[in-house]
Amino acid sequence: MTGSEEKKIKLIIAYDGGAYHGWQRQLNAVTIQQVFEERLEKMLGESPRVFASGRTDAGVHALGQVVHFSTCSRLDPGTLEKGLNSLLPSDIFVREATYVTEDFHARYSAKRKRYEYHILNTEDPDIFRRSYAWHIRKKLDNEMMRECLIRILGEHDFSAFRSSGSGNRNPIRTLYRAELLEQQGGSIQIVMEANGFLRHMVRNLVGTLVEVGMGKMSTEEFGAALDSRERRLAGPRAPAHGLFLVEVTY
Amino acid sequence: MTGSEEKKIKLIIAYDGGAYHGWQRQLNAVTIQQVFEERLEKMLGESPRVFASGRTDAGVHALGQVVHFSTCSRLDPGTLEKGLNSLLPSDIFVREATYVTEDFHARYSAKRKRYEYHILNTEDPDIFRRSYAWHIRKKLDNEMMRECLIRILGEHDFSAFRSSGSGNRNPIRTLYRAELLEQQGGSIQIVMEANGFLRHMVRNLVGTLVEVGMGKMSTEEFGAALDSRERRLAGPRAPAHGLFLVEVTY
Repeated sequence: MTGSEEKKIKLIIAYDGGAYHGWQRQLNAVTIQQVFEERLEKMLGESPRVFASGRTDAGVHALGQVVHFSTCSRLDPGTLEKGLNSLLPSDIFVREATYVTEDFHARYSAKRKRYEYHILNTEDPDIFRRSYAWHIRKKLDNEMMRECLIRILGEHDFSAFRSSGSGNRNPIRTLYRAELLEQQGGSIQIVMEANGFLRHMVRNLVGTLVEVGMGKMSTEEFGAALDSRERRLAGPRAPAHGLFLVEVTY
Repeated sequence: MTGSEEKKIKLIIAYDGGAYHGWQRQLNAVTIQQVFEERLEKMLGESPRVFASGRTDAGVHALGQVVHFSTCSRLDPGTLEKGLNSLLPSDIFVREATYVTEDFHARYSAKRKRYEYHILNTEDPDIFRRSYAWHIRKKLDNEMMRECLIRILGEHDFSAFRSSGSGNRNPIRTLYRAELLEQQGGSIQIVMEANGFLRHMVRNLVGTLVEVGMGKMSTEEFGAALDSRERRLAGPRAPAHGLFLVEVTY
């Protein structure tokens, strides 16, 4: 340690989740955290534990995941960023590295998170987006989906959209933004920003919204599912490969 | 055969070339032709040979490759298309199937081909386009590249941009379109349409254009390389993963 002071570094990273079993370290499965910590160790000669703003599930992508770690290395953040990018595989990229104060924590200091879910609503699939958007052939009723998105804005108990295994934490979250953006050629983006998300919450919400968009569920039933706080009244979970963690705000 | 007449079918197909050693069948390497013919055999119970408008090299993509084959099957083109798409892997897709007359040949009847080459000219890579665009960090001078593109329009001997191993065929081709399109966020598309292309011609042209865009070669040197018909005076070959065969016109 040569007596040098430990410094805390915050990184904004992007990754293609397609090849990984999510962020968090696991036995017998390659995760982003593992690859990241290995490369960091190679570079620093230390083995810092890397903390993320939250786990992303297997197959989920990130444009702006935030992580932090502490190190005695004297490498400045810019050098660290370049060095790490030269060691990381082509599906993980460090966008930004900065010093942060001792009290910063990627997870506990996070104020808001923004996710985007990408849907391709066209007759034919786009093979070049097959890993980055949920292809839905049947024409969705975007207006009906928008009505549901307005319904979830603000503070709610989102138990109906929480997958089991998420512990008994407080199921109340505040959605600051819940929007459906239409783009050219049948591309749809569902944007959700909140003070936090329960396990699988975005994917369970999107899966249920799509039920409404397909006419299999009414907007009233969507509202009733939310109010019921019962998972069984909501729709199925949307696939992982359409989901992107876009930004974490501190 | 039950005495049924042979019919000729034309398909327009898209593929992500990333996982394949190009279109054409090879020993000890998976090619698109091989996968395609295997699925066709599975469906038809015959083994028709599939002819393409041209080979694409390892790693090159297609949005509109055209192929044909002859079959005694009574399945109509729409049924064939659906059936094939249910059997093909997710990186190959049949966009259209139609009957064509006996004299149609995917290769010999082709009048024009259009290729697009995608470049991402930004400081940071976009990991989600890492397999579909050539990432170039240094800012390119698009105007200089446009000057060169004007220079290659029309009929020329393109020997300087032909890779060896392309036989002693006529090196003269006519370019109907040679354009650089700028899009948001540093995306560049180089569009080339011609009555035909020599081996590696688009990639050799793009690689040389990029030399000009980087200031390593002048527009005059580009013109001189074209006029010289000497491969050694032109620039290096651009990587395969930025190239798309977009359309074949008959």
